[in-house]
Amino acid sequence: MPERIYNFSPGPGTLPYSVLQEAAVDIVNFKDKGIGLIELSHRSKEFMAVAEETENLIRELMGIPANYKVLFLQGGASSQFFMVPMNLLKADQKATYLNTGVWAKKAIKEAKLFGQVEVAYSSEDITFKRVPRDDEYTVAPDSQYLYFVTNNTIYGTQFPTMPNKEAMLIADMSSDILSRPVDVSKFGLIFAGAQKNMGPAGVTVVIIREDLLDRVDDKVPTMLKYKTHAEKDSMFNTPPCFSIYCVGRVMNWLKQTGGVAAIEKLNREKAALLYEVIDSTEFYRGHAEKESRSLMNVAFNLPTPELEAQFIREATAVGLDGLKGHRSVGGCRASIYNAFPREGVEKLVTFMADFAKKNG
Amino acid sequence: MPERIYNFSPGPGTLPYSVLQEAAVDIVNFKDKGIGLIELSHRSKEFMAVAEETENLIRELMGIPANYKVLFLQGGASSQFFMVPMNLLKADQKATYLNTGVWAKKAIKEAKLFGQVEVAYSSEDITFKRVPRDDEYTVAPDSQYLYFVTNNTIYGTQFPTMPNKEAMLIADMSSDILSRPVDVSKFGLIFAGAQKNMGPAGVTVVIIREDLLDRVDDKVPTMLKYKTHAEKDSMFNTPPCFSIYCVGRVMNWLKQTGGVAAIEKLNREKAALLYEVIDSTEFYRGHAEKESRSLMNVAFNLPTPELEAQFIREATAVGLDGLKGHRSVGGCRASIYNAFPREGVEKLVTFMADFAKKNG
Repeated sequence: MPERIYNFSPGPGTLPYSVLQEAAVDIVNFKDKGIGLIELSHRSKEFMAVAEETENLIRELMGIPANYKVLFLQGGASSQFFMVPMNLLKADQKATYLNTGVWAKKAIKEAKLFGQVEVAYSSEDITFKRVPRDDEYTVAPDSQYLYFVTNNTIYGTQFPTMPNKEAMLIADMSSDILSRPVDVSKFGLIFAGAQKNMGPAGVTVVIIREDLLDRVDDKVPTMLKYKTHAEKDSMFNTPPCFSIYCVGRVMNWLKQTGGVAAIEKLNREKAALLYEVIDSTEFYRGHAEKESRSLMNVAFNLPTPELEAQFIREATAVGLDGLKGHRSVGGCRASIYNAFPREGVEKLVTFMADFAKKNG
Repeated sequence: MPERIYNFSPGPGTLPYSVLQEAAVDIVNFKDKGIGLIELSHRSKEFMAVAEETENLIRELMGIPANYKVLFLQGGASSQFFMVPMNLLKADQKATYLNTGVWAKKAIKEAKLFGQVEVAYSSEDITFKRVPRDDEYTVAPDSQYLYFVTNNTIYGTQFPTMPNKEAMLIADMSSDILSRPVDVSKFGLIFAGAQKNMGPAGVTVVIIREDLLDRVDDKVPTMLKYKTHAEKDSMFNTPPCFSIYCVGRVMNWLKQTGGVAAIEKLNREKAALLYEVIDSTEFYRGHAEKESRSLMNVAFNLPTPELEAQFIREATAVGLDGLKGHRSVGGCRASIYNAFPREGVEKLVTFMADFAKKNG
């Protein structure tokens, strides 16, 4: 096997190596039962135990109160863009959205199919380079919820703290869930595609306050009601078993690593290394405003697109992979989720300093 | 490792052992690239090649005409129950359904949310023990489509041939896709959850005639339009990468095995062995009428529920696993999908003959 590369992809992204090794064994022969993990009936006691353990670990790591359900759904975060308003917003009701990037904008588009949408803040005209402070927008008293994206992968911005408003919060936490402690009790609903901080693609975790389950209209298709899945512990139909298993293994790894508070410390250290090298030279320019900087995705530019292309090419050649920025902002982006090792960040920082010296 | 058990589960079910072994290697280090399969960005050239190969193999094995799209969606077959009418049926339009089991019935329930549903045939009052011949029902000339379930896992029934009617066919082929040749050009849409004949749970394959993509109403959420996924080759959002990869490996195995016509011959032989032992004694009673018998799921009863429980217990003890029938019909069921080995069927047949002799 060649040396393992450092994978800076924005997601699907790097996973703990130990989890890959566990999965490789269980796929062929799950716990020595003579049957592969992905051949297990989802109603077998073996798989039911996997799903239960995964849920319990998420509950424990996030400190989820007992009056919240944890659901394992399919369709990605993109399906939550419509499921949230389909379940929680009526045609004559209002909801408030913060437009901090492409994913927020897509959610706004879907919500407009169901109810009245108020966009209380937008940084679209400044290429989404910041997120708002609480004093920069208001939420109407009759708004059903305040929807926001905690971390914006493309622009490298992140809410440094959660909005403190008189409103039920709903958050797309796809790219920073479990990267720092969050008070779940402030939220009506949290969702996250797994493929950044939780596991492989194929499962979306939804955390929903129980009293919201009954708001849905009878005319909504069965599979699109949160209530359907909540009542059957995500086993109404065959769930994405392998992805749920992997999320459980990643949660187990996170617990061994010390949990969410411990990983936050590591995440802050990793991000600081990168922002330091960016700030120490004129050569690199961070995309996000300092107060909005993400600990998960560090987006930056070099003096010219040609130098950016050269940078990415040379980095790839030394095993620093996936650094190309999103086409909508260009430049470079280092995604350093929970499982991304500190050594990889150190190697990139050294590479950046050298590259700036040679080409600056 | 203990001896590999024979897994008669109705799905997720047994997969080719060689596929499990390939997946175990690629999960840790995909094609020796120093990165795990489930860590690959879905937009990497490596994963794009995986998705393309998977699609091409399905097209080749099924002989799918060029004017059909092959989509990799999420949400299981259960999500197709509403997506089909949501995309293809307007409130003032009519569609025809055949009620041959629980899965058909669930699809009928969802379709009623969108348009006028005519149930042209039902075997519900005889515990779904048969499927209709063409001369047993009619399809109204103004019906948009004829919807049916090709194989009914719970009752062990299967359409011996596809309906020959003046109507566009739409089929749930979840439990017998790729088990026998099918003329795709007779269909408007075919869908199948992967976890029986194609791979692990987590991906649903949809084969749709291109001209149907434009029928959908603008007010349908983006993710629920087939058109959205067709236009982006199933990469509108992050697809269930691992499940798609596995489907590709299973398709490769099927091609090596000789393709669909060859596997049909093997499937007929396997099923014949089981039906022969059932018919050769009064001890076992097949659930399905002979003309409707499934090659995929063989459902049968013993003289008493106590003997059935004993049968299942003793079978499990000798490595014949997953033989318990669905709670709605009771008894026993042997699911023998494409990847189920003939030796396992032979072992079960011997066990059944012995059990009948001892307890009959």
